[in-house]
Amino acid sequence: MSNEQVTAGLVVIGDEILSGRTKDVNIGATAEFCTDLGIELQEVRVVSDDMDAIVEAVNALRARYSYVFTTGGIGPTHDDITADAVARAFGVDLPIHPVAREMLMSRWKDLEVTPARLRMARIPEGAELVTNAVSAAPGFWIGNVIVMAGVPVIMRAMLESVAPRLKGGRKVLSAAVDAAVGEGDLGDPLAALQDEFPDVKMGSYPQMGQGQVRTQLVLRSTDAERLAAATARVEAMVAAVQHKRDIGQSRKEKQ
Amino acid sequence: MSNEQVTAGLVVIGDEILSGRTKDVNIGATAEFCTDLGIELQEVRVVSDDMDAIVEAVNALRARYSYVFTTGGIGPTHDDITADAVARAFGVDLPIHPVAREMLMSRWKDLEVTPARLRMARIPEGAELVTNAVSAAPGFWIGNVIVMAGVPVIMRAMLESVAPRLKGGRKVLSAAVDAAVGEGDLGDPLAALQDEFPDVKMGSYPQMGQGQVRTQLVLRSTDAERLAAATARVEAMVAAVQHKRDIGQSRKEKQ
Repeated sequence: MSNEQVTAGLVVIGDEILSGRTKDVNIGATAEFCTDLGIELQEVRVVSDDMDAIVEAVNALRARYSYVFTTGGIGPTHDDITADAVARAFGVDLPIHPVAREMLMSRWKDLEVTPARLRMARIPEGAELVTNAVSAAPGFWIGNVIVMAGVPVIMRAMLESVAPRLKGGRKVLSAAVDAAVGEGDLGDPLAALQDEFPDVKMGSYPQMGQGQVRTQLVLRSTDAERLAAATARVEAMVAAVQHKRDIGQSRKEKQ
Repeated sequence: MSNEQVTAGLVVIGDEILSGRTKDVNIGATAEFCTDLGIELQEVRVVSDDMDAIVEAVNALRARYSYVFTTGGIGPTHDDITADAVARAFGVDLPIHPVAREMLMSRWKDLEVTPARLRMARIPEGAELVTNAVSAAPGFWIGNVIVMAGVPVIMRAMLESVAPRLKGGRKVLSAAVDAAVGEGDLGDPLAALQDEFPDVKMGSYPQMGQGQVRTQLVLRSTDAERLAAATARVEAMVAAVQHKRDIGQSRKEKQ
C-alpha cells in the first residue's frame, strides 16, 4: 500500500456485448477487484472486434491510467484479434511464444495442433504471460496493459493471477447511511456537506420499488477519520430531514 | 427501414458502476434495443461523475455515431451533473424548463419544491423533453444525444418513448449453429467461410461448464439470402468437423 493514486482503465472487446447477445459481467468483476486493491477504475470502453477500434481504445487508456485491463478476443477464431491489436498499439511483432505453445500443447495432448489453436500462442514481443488455473491459453502483460480472456471464469482467474504483482493504491474506505426520505429532500443538505468534506466522496442512490421512498447515501474516502466525521454529519443531517418530514406529515394529519 | 447504416454510441455515467457497487444492466438493455431497431451500437464508454470526463465522452461519440445515448446522472443530488455536462458539450445554457418544472410539480403535489428537486427541471437550451411512464423527471434529446436516467426501469421506459422517433437502419438478421466441438477445431474452416462471405459476420462462442465441449456459431447479415447460404455452408462445415472428430475417437477406441 502506498499513498500514490493508482488508476485503471478497462477495454471490453466483443461484438457480442454490443449486439446485446451476451450480457457483460466483466465490468462489474473488474470494478470490484480494483476497488478491493485500492485501484481506482476510472473508465471503461466497450469496443467491437475491430482492429482500429481496439488499437485506439488501448492507446488512449494506456496513456492515461496506471493500468489498462482488456477482456475478450484472445480465443482461436478469426474474430479474436486482441493480440494483433495490442501488438500494433505497441508497435511490436506477434510471434508464437514457445512457452505459451508448450502450455497449450501439453493441455491438448491428443488434439490436433491447428493453425487456429496456435493463434492462442501468439504473444506480443516483450510481453509476459498471464497464466490461469482454468484454461491453458494464457493472457499477457505488456507495458501497463494486461490482456485477459472474455469468458468470465477465466477472466477472474487471470485477475487473481496478476493481483500479487499489481501495486495497490490507498485503500478506499466506505460507509453507507440509509435514509427513509427521497433524494429530492436530501440533495441540498448533502451538497452542502459535500462542499465541507471535499476529500470524502458522497453518492446518493434512490431505492426503487420497495413500497416506500428510501435513499442510500454512500461515503468514500481514503482517510478513516475524515470518513467517520463526514458520516456522523450525514447521519445527523438525515435524522433532521426525516424529523422535518415527520412533523410535516403529523401537521397534515391533524388538519 | 432505410438502407443507410444507423449507428449509436452509449455513455454510462456513474461512480457506482466504476466502483463495482452497482452492476450495470443498461449496456445490455440498450444493446438489445438498438439491435431490434437495426441500429448498430458501436461503442460504450463508462465514465465517472466528472464534468470533463462526461463532456469528452459525449463530444467524442456524438461526432462519430448517428445517435448517442447517455444513462445516469440526472437525479436531484450534487453528483448528478449530466445535464450540466451535456449543456457544456453543446455550448448552451441550462435554464429551468417550464414544462419540465410543471411535470415535476404536478407529480410532487405536497412535496416541498427544493432547489435540489428543481435541478431535475434544468434542461439544455434547444433540447426536447424525453418523458417516460415511470418517473415524472424527464430526460432530454439535444442534437443527436439522448439523455436518460440511470435507474434501469426508467431508462427502458425512456428508450421506449424515443423509439418511434429514431430512424432504424437495415434490420440485422441472425442465425445460430450449434457445434459439439471446440473453437480450436472450427477456427480455420470458419475463417475460410468468413473470407468467402464478407457480408455475413460470423462469431464463435465457446459454451463452458456444460460437461462437454460445445461452440455456438452466430451469423449476422442484413441480407436474408446471403445469411441462409452462409448458414448452410457453416452447418455443412460443422457436420464435417464433427464427423472427423468422431472417426478419430473411434480409431482411438479400437487401438
